[in-house]
Amino acid sequence: MSDLKRVEAAKEKLLTTARTVIVTTALPEEEGGGPDLGFSPFYRDADGHFYIYTSHLSAHVRALLKDAPVKFMLAADESVSQNIWARVRVSFTADVTRITRDDDRFEPMMDTMQDHLGATMGLIRNFTDFHLFKIIPEKGVLVTGFAAAYAVSGPQFTITEHLSNS
Amino acid sequence: MSDLKRVEAAKEKLLTTARTVIVTTALPEEEGGGPDLGFSPFYRDADGHFYIYTSHLSAHVRALLKDAPVKFMLAADESVSQNIWARVRVSFTADVTRITRDDDRFEPMMDTMQDHLGATMGLIRNFTDFHLFKIIPEKGVLVTGFAAAYAVSGPQFTITEHLSNS
Repeated sequence: MSDLKRVEAAKEKLLTTARTVIVTTALPEEEGGGPDLGFSPFYRDADGHFYIYTSHLSAHVRALLKDAPVKFMLAADESVSQNIWARVRVSFTADVTRITRDDDRFEPMMDTMQDHLGATMGLIRNFTDFHLFKIIPEKGVLVTGFAAAYAVSGPQFTITEHLSNS
Repeated sequence: MSDLKRVEAAKEKLLTTARTVIVTTALPEEEGGGPDLGFSPFYRDADGHFYIYTSHLSAHVRALLKDAPVKFMLAADESVSQNIWARVRVSFTADVTRITRDDDRFEPMMDTMQDHLGATMGLIRNFTDFHLFKIIPEKGVLVTGFAAAYAVSGPQFTITEHLSNS
């Protein structure tokens, strides 16, 4: 395989195996400022749009509700990383919108997520501290190894540039 | 096992198996503001102090060098998480200090990290874009399952309170 094919294969493997996304925000001043982070299980549709359903009991979710700046990351498990210094990962900014409970898309997406994410969705779908967010990736950085960092763009994480740093 | 013994066991397993720590910062304005994050392999000493060696080519490391607010997280792999909604994880604030190359502790710690983190350390220990940081955990939240979030304190992540939210 050529290098680029190897990178594309590593990207596809990450996108098809990762089940949680790291969500990190900069908290508003009234929440103490500084960063906060958490994991969310996600559903990714055919257009590459991510959906997460997550509780405002976490500070980073309250920040999301207030349109705080946010960054996401998908990462390969440590156990499948041949070199722990080079976990395959992609971090990205995104357009984030909330889909409220009275939106026509809400219940169908709850059904879809229940199909993909298992029985827990059935338990929590009626918990009103949980909120549905749609995440459309914008720009990011894909890392597949040493000196293998790539600028990516859009929901398919299209590679646009080989970076000298990450 | 009692519930608390189960939680302590989950914590010990996480602390003894995790090989990378998530580092997230709020970037200074001149870096564009907002959050940034990355993974670092770490060495954790007998006192529970973490050491990471990481490059300023990443924005979150440049933010660390400028004493930006920072939060850390250790997380169990997805593949060992029975329920993907409840990955075992601990997020924490910490006292972070830089150990510069002219510090007497620098070379011995490079040797120790090379022993623990493998051959890559031998390659990068002389790269001057990399910096050594000592991280002493202060306060955090340990999550071991649904409705199982605990306030933790100090380098041993001593459980101080069962939280009703995380």
